[in-house]
Amino acid sequence: MEVMHGDKYPVVSQSRDSRFLTLRFLQTPQGRSRSGLYLIEGIRHVARALEQPAAIESVFVDPSLLSNPFGQKLARRLRKSGIPGIRLAPQLYRDLTLAGEPQGIGAVLRQQWTPLASLEPTRNSLWLALESIESPGNLGTILRTAEAAGVAGVFLIDAEADPYDPAAVRASMGSLFSQKLIRCSTREFADWARRRGLTIVSSSPAGLLDYRALRCQWPIALVVGGEKHGLSERIVEVSDFTVRIPMRGRCDSINVAVAAGVLLFEMTSQCRR
Amino acid sequence: MEVMHGDKYPVVSQSRDSRFLTLRFLQTPQGRSRSGLYLIEGIRHVARALEQPAAIESVFVDPSLLSNPFGQKLARRLRKSGIPGIRLAPQLYRDLTLAGEPQGIGAVLRQQWTPLASLEPTRNSLWLALESIESPGNLGTILRTAEAAGVAGVFLIDAEADPYDPAAVRASMGSLFSQKLIRCSTREFADWARRRGLTIVSSSPAGLLDYRALRCQWPIALVVGGEKHGLSERIVEVSDFTVRIPMRGRCDSINVAVAAGVLLFEMTSQCRR
Repeated sequence: MEVMHGDKYPVVSQSRDSRFLTLRFLQTPQGRSRSGLYLIEGIRHVARALEQPAAIESVFVDPSLLSNPFGQKLARRLRKSGIPGIRLAPQLYRDLTLAGEPQGIGAVLRQQWTPLASLEPTRNSLWLALESIESPGNLGTILRTAEAAGVAGVFLIDAEADPYDPAAVRASMGSLFSQKLIRCSTREFADWARRRGLTIVSSSPAGLLDYRALRCQWPIALVVGGEKHGLSERIVEVSDFTVRIPMRGRCDSINVAVAAGVLLFEMTSQCRR
Repeated sequence: MEVMHGDKYPVVSQSRDSRFLTLRFLQTPQGRSRSGLYLIEGIRHVARALEQPAAIESVFVDPSLLSNPFGQKLARRLRKSGIPGIRLAPQLYRDLTLAGEPQGIGAVLRQQWTPLASLEPTRNSLWLALESIESPGNLGTILRTAEAAGVAGVFLIDAEADPYDPAAVRASMGSLFSQKLIRCSTREFADWARRRGLTIVSSSPAGLLDYRALRCQWPIALVVGGEKHGLSERIVEVSDFTVRIPMRGRCDSINVAVAAGVLLFEMTSQCRR
């Protein structure tokens, strides 16, 4: 009980309070790009952010929703470690939350972008480059898959997709915090790969090579994307190989996150075969 | 021009018109389960339904949105082939549509469920069984992946998931029309598989066998599911093998549609190796 009597976060109950307005602003692309910050929500995400080098700037809670004991413990731990925060009035938390079953805790994090020049690929490393991924849900799912497959870093090429979009954050299930993210142009990516001795493998339904037949030198950078119109000519031209996943039935394509999973897991298993 | 002067579908402009209300009702789980019908939307979906044995009951169009020449041709073809339909007033179509960029054409289709007893697996056939898939988007993505991997049929085990939910229909990209769908209990599925000599392979993060190490007799039924809590004990008990996809990083799982893709494509390629 002594914890409950300790210092508490200040209450925010006015919708015009600048602290609440900042949270709302971070739900927009403009807010995220201007501030370099983003929002996460839910016990699992906040707990994982705390374990990672992910930089938690502040937290927001709604004690009336935070009934889970693990969540309450987490909130106390955050407060004791000196991370600033606010308590949102229930109405404001409800206005803010995107969760179907809100758990009453969220945080503001700093976006982490890795500069291209700092990347030194190891001999057996696998990299992933994404082009024209429009759905934030797909993007988040791909980040989660990439971590599971042991990808060393993810390039967002000429990207409009925002990995810090709430739907991408949610689908990434926390993989966002530990994954190296690099934003660059096709040219910068190709130059980097060339100089570092990477093999660039693009995936396209029009690829001449069955992905299972590919035997190439590591390290590898796999390129996927183009949910609607396929990969650009630009990226196919700088690739060493273009592979396809053979399809049966009347399918001419599969979901881009599924395709990324099929290719990444095949590559990681080839490396060990 | 003569086509424009030919018979046209009757106009529906009142929101209390029973024909409009029927369409709305089919957007609900109750409406679909009571009628055995469902809705599809968009040129691509309607065109694909027309090519398939999928039974189109009726169509609805909004001529003010149907500007694509291929879409207009499609609407004429449907009308000429005697399929009944209505023209919805723009306001009603807007109320009904779930599309971000509505194309002005949709259809009512009859659900097609295949009875378990009629299924005779061929020697090299691959089957997919789904348990506890809650997200209709995941379900649709899995149906699309299953078709691309040459799956012979998809079992929905003790399912609450509805493959005819609009989000599932959309994500399936038309694979729904050609895929055999079977609804049954775990017991019925296991009995069928046993009698027909299928190997049941479950996928679980707790599986003892790396999926790449599995060599088993065909035909195979792969079981995936349990987005939140994993597969049930019931289904694991009736399985011949339980495999896992080894994960790196801090991931303990990947998206269920990605997992299905990784496993199905590995299996189809093993069959040919």
